[in-house]
Amino acid sequence: MAAPERPTPRLPRGFRDVFGDALVQRQRMIERIVAVYRRYGFTALETPIVEYLETLGKYLPDTDRPEGGVFAFRDERDEWLALRYDLTAPLSRVMAQYPDLPLPFRRYQVGSVFRDEKPGPGRFCEFIQCDFDTVGTASMLADAEVCSVLGDVMEALGFQPGDYRIRVNNRKVLNGVLEKAGLNVADSREDVAGPWLTVLRAIDKLDRVGLDGVAQLLGKGRMDESGDFTKGAALATGQIDTILGYLQLVGQERGALVTALGALTAGSKVGEEGVAELAEIDRLLTAAGAGDERITFDPTVVRGLAYYTGPVYEAELTFEVKDEKGEVTRFGSVAGGGRYDDLVDRFLGKVVPATGASMGVDRLLAALELARPEASGGPDSVLVVVMDPNFMAEYMGLAAELRAAGVAAELYMGEGRVGAQLRYADRRGLPAVVICGENEFASNEVSVKDLAVGRKLAQGMSDRKQWQEERPAQVTIPRGELVATVRRIIDGE
Amino acid sequence: MAAPERPTPRLPRGFRDVFGDALVQRQRMIERIVAVYRRYGFTALETPIVEYLETLGKYLPDTDRPEGGVFAFRDERDEWLALRYDLTAPLSRVMAQYPDLPLPFRRYQVGSVFRDEKPGPGRFCEFIQCDFDTVGTASMLADAEVCSVLGDVMEALGFQPGDYRIRVNNRKVLNGVLEKAGLNVADSREDVAGPWLTVLRAIDKLDRVGLDGVAQLLGKGRMDESGDFTKGAALATGQIDTILGYLQLVGQERGALVTALGALTAGSKVGEEGVAELAEIDRLLTAAGAGDERITFDPTVVRGLAYYTGPVYEAELTFEVKDEKGEVTRFGSVAGGGRYDDLVDRFLGKVVPATGASMGVDRLLAALELARPEASGGPDSVLVVVMDPNFMAEYMGLAAELRAAGVAAELYMGEGRVGAQLRYADRRGLPAVVICGENEFASNEVSVKDLAVGRKLAQGMSDRKQWQEERPAQVTIPRGELVATVRRIIDGE
Repeated sequence: MAAPERPTPRLPRGFRDVFGDALVQRQRMIERIVAVYRRYGFTALETPIVEYLETLGKYLPDTDRPEGGVFAFRDERDEWLALRYDLTAPLSRVMAQYPDLPLPFRRYQVGSVFRDEKPGPGRFCEFIQCDFDTVGTASMLADAEVCSVLGDVMEALGFQPGDYRIRVNNRKVLNGVLEKAGLNVADSREDVAGPWLTVLRAIDKLDRVGLDGVAQLLGKGRMDESGDFTKGAALATGQIDTILGYLQLVGQERGALVTALGALTAGSKVGEEGVAELAEIDRLLTAAGAGDERITFDPTVVRGLAYYTGPVYEAELTFEVKDEKGEVTRFGSVAGGGRYDDLVDRFLGKVVPATGASMGVDRLLAALELARPEASGGPDSVLVVVMDPNFMAEYMGLAAELRAAGVAAELYMGEGRVGAQLRYADRRGLPAVVICGENEFASNEVSVKDLAVGRKLAQGMSDRKQWQEERPAQVTIPRGELVATVRRIIDGE
Repeated sequence: MAAPERPTPRLPRGFRDVFGDALVQRQRMIERIVAVYRRYGFTALETPIVEYLETLGKYLPDTDRPEGGVFAFRDERDEWLALRYDLTAPLSRVMAQYPDLPLPFRRYQVGSVFRDEKPGPGRFCEFIQCDFDTVGTASMLADAEVCSVLGDVMEALGFQPGDYRIRVNNRKVLNGVLEKAGLNVADSREDVAGPWLTVLRAIDKLDRVGLDGVAQLLGKGRMDESGDFTKGAALATGQIDTILGYLQLVGQERGALVTALGALTAGSKVGEEGVAELAEIDRLLTAAGAGDERITFDPTVVRGLAYYTGPVYEAELTFEVKDEKGEVTRFGSVAGGGRYDDLVDRFLGKVVPATGASMGVDRLLAALELARPEASGGPDSVLVVVMDPNFMAEYMGLAAELRAAGVAAELYMGEGRVGAQLRYADRRGLPAVVICGENEFASNEVSVKDLAVGRKLAQGMSDRKQWQEERPAQVTIPRGELVATVRRIIDGE
């Protein structure tokens, strides 16, 4: 047989490798998020990466093919399998499959989901979702709790009230306003292709196009700076004014907003229901001591076009960052969710109320790096240089001593001499190396070299002379001071 | 459009859902394992679930189809993608794709892998691997370290020397013995379908069939109890004696075994190389203070038929358990690995030495449950019963107080009355519920009900009267004692 051609080492388009510290930071973040979920009594769930395509609701029965966007393949019985698209469809399947689960069923799930879509900057075909949901109760207590959990997660990650805001709205209120404006929202789901959709899309663009832009999108349409024209919803002036009046309520305190929304939706059954729900959430949040500085009501929150049926939530980071164009902007949304009462409808044909939210893990990581660049750090392990293989037992002893004290320590395993070992440690970004030769062992001392100093010098981040005086790059110390010295260097003291 | 047929909520065959506590136990175990890897300076790596099929080496070029056992599908450019089969093939791809990685590259990776194979009890199509590898050095230091890491992981999980044993062998020694027995092992990889394979398989069965059984399998063949006949390797009596003599060395201390193996393989180049490697590992382990009670050399370790090229390792739990038939047996292997020098050969056509091992997460979890049934515990969150919705702010306050003290607390979210709430908590397996009504709030007290007591009584696990006297199922205590009381119940004191 001829030698097979060598494959090219490459990743499928839209997938990525994640290395070292970035991964550790993400894992720590997820652990902090999950700790909050667990503190509220949410229980863990793990479902497979692979589901039947019909479970995901991404099956196109007419063509017997999966919808675009889903990675799908056939099993040996010719049934379509697919990689999960989100964590909500598997939750639906679980709720339908195990009817004996005690209700309310409150679970969290962390895991990769897959989208066969064109990747972009920061957008990948595999990414992590971090969801929590309460299934089986219509009580607004569950919705108020979602807001509290989102707030607690933000604070567990080190953001303070003022850095973040949980913004709450209610689809029923939105529908009530549209109903009062004369739109048909009898069944917004069936109407999803009608003006209702165009109106929601217009409201969702408020951040980018401003009130005037929304007015244009609700009317005849809007031309953007590039000259592209977006057709509008073709509403009448009075209709547009009603919707703009609603949007202008933004910024009011929860209690005042509930009153104003009550007036605006009076007479619309669905609108009044929505306002009552917001009033109840306000009452519960106030009872829990969560004021407007943490959790606000915001009429402009739409949460995309997912089929939310009541309250919707969004966690936003309010601190300012520069975008790609160098313009100052708010960091924006890092989590969101809402109430959806059709969770198992597709399987069982009955309404089971549910509410929950999902954290955007990658967005949050990016935010943490911007907010606290020092938090991202680097690897915190040190290298024990093997200067003289005759002292291997001693080098192993140094590494073991550091590990026992909780300091990650690596013994150099390669063939390189001391210079190569130092370059290895430097390229790895390690903070320090431990260097010992015959002399040190004879005098019961160790030498520790601070690589961070060298890197800072190389980057011109500090004055060379000053560093040399105040913090010598290499010190020789009594053996008993090894752990303390290494710790001091790692902690950057 | 007609209403679509309702899909059946079901899992693809061979996949599973994991709920609650089992998942938390697994996560904690993985965290402990990873902490050991990190302590040795291994760095994190995450690769995608999806790889090109050719990356996995599971591509059958003759038929342009994937090998059996791999979940594969075509992308929009008609290239074969596949779900990763293990974590080693992606590591190969990474090593070939990023030539600038500092060597030795030492990484750990934890993640799901996928096998499209017939599932069995405890065998699933998706399961977690937990690997660590050192790539880019031929030094036995790396192999000795693998043994140390495996031992440290066992102890980090709570096993003591005596509970576990790390067993080490060397493929070169095995090949040397076979060479001395007159088998052709010039290239054992090409010879993989010849008698060499049959001989390795026979040795691998030593545990089950004993020395006599191996002798039969090396000779004409062996009939098992059910009457099935396995054809043997058809070796001559002298050849069989050489191999049996080798296997009978089991049980000797490392130093003595190295000497005996040296005598047995003298004159075989590959055998002598292997013995020198074992001698070096022994020297390093002894220097590190790891004696025979933790890490033994064992001539019978084969590690399946994977293409290991030098040292192989296996972590075994030695405590006795009853198998499905009720027979007492050792728990057996929970981790394994070895040195493999052809890691990137498929991509780059060059030898890059590598060594590492993989933990069997599910096997370890099963072992932990058998060894320490109390460790598996149950959920540790408590339910705050909503007895009177007028006191919702107070119930929220109770839950918040518990959470702030680090106790997971859940507020009942459903519509049920007190009885239904208690049944819910009981079905969830919660250890305790907090019950407060008007009276308790008036007297600044709380009632805490210990559900574990009720469950134990129900299971007949204790004397009802005794429990009632010593540990009343429900206590009413001053409000200030809430956290301490709940903690005591959770800790089972």
